[in-house]
Amino acid sequence: MKQQLIFTNKPGEALDSLVAKLAPKGVFVLTDRNVASQVIPFLSAMSAEVAKAIIIETPAGDVNKNLDCLEAIWSRLNEEGATRKSLIINVGGGMITDMGGFAAATFKRGMRFINVPTTLLAAVDASVGGKTGINFNGCKNEIGVFAEAEAVVISTIFFNTLPLQELLSGYAEMLKHGLLENRETFSALLGFNISSENFNGERLLELLRQSVAVKERVVTEDPYEHGIRRALNLGHTIGHAVESFAMNERKAPVPHGYAVAWGMVVELVMSNMLEHFPSEILHAYASYVRDNYGAFYITCDDYPALLRLMAHDKKNPSPDKINFTLLADVGAIKIDCIVDKDTITAALDIYRDLMGI
Amino acid sequence: MKQQLIFTNKPGEALDSLVAKLAPKGVFVLTDRNVASQVIPFLSAMSAEVAKAIIIETPAGDVNKNLDCLEAIWSRLNEEGATRKSLIINVGGGMITDMGGFAAATFKRGMRFINVPTTLLAAVDASVGGKTGINFNGCKNEIGVFAEAEAVVISTIFFNTLPLQELLSGYAEMLKHGLLENRETFSALLGFNISSENFNGERLLELLRQSVAVKERVVTEDPYEHGIRRALNLGHTIGHAVESFAMNERKAPVPHGYAVAWGMVVELVMSNMLEHFPSEILHAYASYVRDNYGAFYITCDDYPALLRLMAHDKKNPSPDKINFTLLADVGAIKIDCIVDKDTITAALDIYRDLMGI
Repeated sequence: MKQQLIFTNKPGEALDSLVAKLAPKGVFVLTDRNVASQVIPFLSAMSAEVAKAIIIETPAGDVNKNLDCLEAIWSRLNEEGATRKSLIINVGGGMITDMGGFAAATFKRGMRFINVPTTLLAAVDASVGGKTGINFNGCKNEIGVFAEAEAVVISTIFFNTLPLQELLSGYAEMLKHGLLENRETFSALLGFNISSENFNGERLLELLRQSVAVKERVVTEDPYEHGIRRALNLGHTIGHAVESFAMNERKAPVPHGYAVAWGMVVELVMSNMLEHFPSEILHAYASYVRDNYGAFYITCDDYPALLRLMAHDKKNPSPDKINFTLLADVGAIKIDCIVDKDTITAALDIYRDLMGI
Repeated sequence: MKQQLIFTNKPGEALDSLVAKLAPKGVFVLTDRNVASQVIPFLSAMSAEVAKAIIIETPAGDVNKNLDCLEAIWSRLNEEGATRKSLIINVGGGMITDMGGFAAATFKRGMRFINVPTTLLAAVDASVGGKTGINFNGCKNEIGVFAEAEAVVISTIFFNTLPLQELLSGYAEMLKHGLLENRETFSALLGFNISSENFNGERLLELLRQSVAVKERVVTEDPYEHGIRRALNLGHTIGHAVESFAMNERKAPVPHGYAVAWGMVVELVMSNMLEHFPSEILHAYASYVRDNYGAFYITCDDYPALLRLMAHDKKNPSPDKINFTLLADVGAIKIDCIVDKDTITAALDIYRDLMGI
């Protein structure tokens, strides 16, 4: 079975027709408190099935993707008489789709579930791969299973109320997929103004569809992450170092998506230096990032700390060899590139230039 | 992937060669306190891998197949640095193989596990089907997943220290499989003296292999329990009624396996009345049960309560139609037989006769 992906800005109709087809014995909607107040009333007005479903609410935030909340979900399902033939609709961000998917996959050894991501990042992430789970003992996603939803219903109408920072975080993943795909897809993304208050929802839905298709293709080609799937780490070697640096040295955490957006600038510079990645595309991307994400401010004095953090990455063959995914062009992927510290240092200099630091 | 079944009375050698083949990063042994003291020292002497493994001990008994103990197992795995490439060897009864299988299937979205059942019942049950899980909110196996072990290592040498009652409970399942198979397999079972203190372990291992093969065939034919798999309910319609009756009316619970052994006597009587099941085989079976399990004492006054309990069974189409699996001969299975109350009453009379009540 592969989960069905439905891109629509009429999510109510999609849900009602899915429920009619699946004919479950009882429908549950899992959501968090924020989504329950901001999205559920709106979704209930569009879907008769959501309107009459039993709502299970959890506290919001990744910190609540834990065993206590999972236990509370299992208890509610048990008390409300859910069976293996019931259905859970998970409405929320990645925290809800991860935890709700796991709750469903393990209740009575597996009931069916549908995901309705309400953030851009969850729409990109939760659509492919079937990863479910919770955090445990301070470790992210330590407990979970692989389990696919019956369907994922993706709508951009949920994104209108998202804070811009969350939209941009998700959009960084889409930019990454564009870079892995081809020039056309990538220019379309650079031509879309995600920061505008009145972005075009139908257009974003179309871009999202293309983006998810890229991820789907990569994951299908390499389900066990032995090769090409590592291309999805583009921007992440620098990005993770920036994230840790911001958190530990500056005590001012940055969103993961922002770190990846900046990380991709540095990695495209390296791609340009080592693999002849086209300069004009590098410059166009750097401008987009500067205009939308701003710059992550660094000086030469920060380089040793950043290099040390990159060296710690578990993907490296040894501490002084740092592993990157680079590009010879948009869509021309080179995995497992070992880059020396002098080249990285030079790339960080050029990044500061491009960002106007 | 299908789990590998290894029938051997050299379990230490089997485990060491499995571990060598799987080449895990770290080996854990999950067991309960009783097994830890009675079996692990003995198994460690036979297996270098068990001797050097990290032992995780839980309290014994089905009452501890719960979320608290599962959480403790996850914590130990996390603290000891288990990864997705580590291996858990579950050594114990069904409680350990169920809970350990679930812990493994969910830790970091799935690590590998091997089951080493130390009770006869667990050997028959845990070998086929991949059911894992824990009890929750007072419901048996409410939370779990289907996940197969890399291998199940089955040895009768563990059974020497089992209380006779536990051996007999497991043997009832084997008798059931024999009845579903053919006359030869079934007579071999009636010819084996499981109650003897010095039973022949090699012979029991051979009978166990046949028994597991029957279950495997039935489950493979009907993985979703739509048809023939319900044959595995033989003896259970009466058996469940007897179990509930003993627990609730008599306040003296009987082991599940005993209830099934008695239930099969009644259901073979009905098979004889309605489907011409051979009388001589019915009598031979009834004698085996009387000699080994004794009789469950009932009078006519108990019939209404028993019939009421049977009527509650969720497998029935309606409260006054009671559903049974019957046999026209050993191996000639008739599922979904509706039997009226007069016939059941007559069969209970004959049961009392056969049991010498």
